[in-house]
Amino acid sequence: MGISPRQFEQLQERVAGKKRATRKPVVDEVAHRVIIGVDPSLRGTGYGVIRLDQPEPKTLAQGTIKCPARLGRSQCLAEISRTLREVVARHRPTACAIEGLFYTQNMKTALTMGEARGAAMAVLAEADIEIFEIAPRKVKQSIVGYGNAQKLAVAKMVQRMLVLDELPEPDAADALALALAFTHLHKRFAIDPSQKI
Amino acid sequence: MGISPRQFEQLQERVAGKKRATRKPVVDEVAHRVIIGVDPSLRGTGYGVIRLDQPEPKTLAQGTIKCPARLGRSQCLAEISRTLREVVARHRPTACAIEGLFYTQNMKTALTMGEARGAAMAVLAEADIEIFEIAPRKVKQSIVGYGNAQKLAVAKMVQRMLVLDELPEPDAADALALALAFTHLHKRFAIDPSQKI
Repeated sequence: MGISPRQFEQLQERVAGKKRATRKPVVDEVAHRVIIGVDPSLRGTGYGVIRLDQPEPKTLAQGTIKCPARLGRSQCLAEISRTLREVVARHRPTACAIEGLFYTQNMKTALTMGEARGAAMAVLAEADIEIFEIAPRKVKQSIVGYGNAQKLAVAKMVQRMLVLDELPEPDAADALALALAFTHLHKRFAIDPSQKI
Repeated sequence: MGISPRQFEQLQERVAGKKRATRKPVVDEVAHRVIIGVDPSLRGTGYGVIRLDQPEPKTLAQGTIKCPARLGRSQCLAEISRTLREVVARHRPTACAIEGLFYTQNMKTALTMGEARGAAMAVLAEADIEIFEIAPRKVKQSIVGYGNAQKLAVAKMVQRMLVLDELPEPDAADALALALAFTHLHKRFAIDPSQKI
């Protein structure tokens, strides 16, 4: 196959002893002290805001945006927008961790899930919040140490890490887990940071 | 299999000569004078606002929200939100016609399309605009009289129906076609109105 001119150039540079360009860190972790985690879904979007603090991060807000079945799809999206806008205005997060691509065989599910994500992401991006995707598996790995951990195990660990009096609701727990996982994945020199979208 | 108590009751009512409940019209067409059509996509969302008028509807606004490749996904969604919010604030439509379910084999496409739809729908629903879905095929049938019509044929017909000086851009033309199709489908006694979502 041979090599491309660009590859040849790179080889020449290496032979000449030039250092390869070091990869820039994807995000400057110092810049983000307040992080919002969002787990979007049409009927129950979870959110959780944490502030990095010692000895453990502080929970500023958490909850589930519940949209009962009597609300139409567009009404749910409006509700997601409104609630997240209020939360963001109050706590001013600078980074958001959102659940990464999931796989489903059902096209309608993907479209509906996409709509909830879109409503949430638009509000966050309009508030100049940087949005990062983290795969569900990675969140579990980061929180419980096991990628197939059950939801309850994640919730319990979140409660412990944030020293919460009560077990958070499932959707809120997932959102708090996303925010916590973001802080772990973006420590300086993290080799596998989450992807900015 | 027998019949359910409810069915039995209905039969009794019919035997007793009671009229069946007539289906309520899905939308009161008199209420909607200004209609926005939206054809959402991440990189080029088309929109068009028309006002019902004689002898033909008047075009209040039309355009494409272009998001170049250098913008991240979340930035595009914010741009869709911002632009539609401005358009809505200026022209105050009360109904929106949006493209209905489409089918794709690609899950990522469905998710991305869903995100653009979600960002758009959230803004419209927050402005108390009623949103209706119309299938692409139905739009073409309504405008050109043929469900498999090509995009150019639709654009030309839209130009003619709205007496526009220039051929609208493809995405804007699709959005205007949606708004026009909505007015056709929601004439009083329409047998197959579009679905409110």
